[in-house]
Amino acid sequence: MTSAGMEQTAAAALLDAIRFDAAGLVPAIAQDAATGEVLMLAWMDRAAVERTLETGKACYWSRSRQRSWMKGESSGHLQIVRSIHLDCDGDALLLKVDQLGGIACHTGRRRCFFRRAEGGGWVVELKPIKTEAEIYGSGS
Amino acid sequence: MTSAGMEQTAAAALLDAIRFDAAGLVPAIAQDAATGEVLMLAWMDRAAVERTLETGKACYWSRSRQRSWMKGESSGHLQIVRSIHLDCDGDALLLKVDQLGGIACHTGRRRCFFRRAEGGGWVVELKPIKTEAEIYGSGS
Repeated sequence: MTSAGMEQTAAAALLDAIRFDAAGLVPAIAQDAATGEVLMLAWMDRAAVERTLETGKACYWSRSRQRSWMKGESSGHLQIVRSIHLDCDGDALLLKVDQLGGIACHTGRRRCFFRRAEGGGWVVELKPIKTEAEIYGSGS
Repeated sequence: MTSAGMEQTAAAALLDAIRFDAAGLVPAIAQDAATGEVLMLAWMDRAAVERTLETGKACYWSRSRQRSWMKGESSGHLQIVRSIHLDCDGDALLLKVDQLGGIACHTGRRRCFFRRAEGGGWVVELKPIKTEAEIYGSGS
């Protein structure tokens, strides 16, 4: 067996333990490896998990855009994967990552979970570090 | 307006910001409020969010059993909710909780994410604190 073949077999063993849903997706939580802060929840299909394993950078499936994406491909805010964890039922993933740029959210905030329930409403508890125009360019 | 009526209105404002999926569910991450450890990912329907807000204890919707459950109702391992957070798209929740009994997983482990990808396979990196028989009784 070639080296590439062995890698494929190894990845297959990892992938086969994951229970993808009817749409072929699994939720993946990204957590800051250093601080423990939960940065975001996104979705992966089988190819996104494979690409994440191959590149060491978090890759997801965008349900709204119906396409694969490497986190940070436009913004530069890549997630370097330190470890990948699977839950008891095999239907959720946890990634511990180094968040490049210190910004996980497309709104320019450190994390996507920036609203907190308080007094019957959602309070925004975090300010953007950069504006979306600064991150993505004002022309896009 | 009665006090109960005001509470309903307040909860409605919180609930209306959540984007439940086609099945009426939203993924909810439970994180240990003290240590930052990600304990589990489960699902909530609107009623589960309402019940969580009302009781201060984490309530979920079981997709496998197709019914509401309060986490810990059988095991005693309740989750006392310290704060609830909503992400930028409104389609994922993060709960910071105190995990009673120090066990979040039905397998008797601290957390459900106890497998780590390593060398092409999943390595179990955490031992059960209690057996399932000890938690749920051997007769069930």
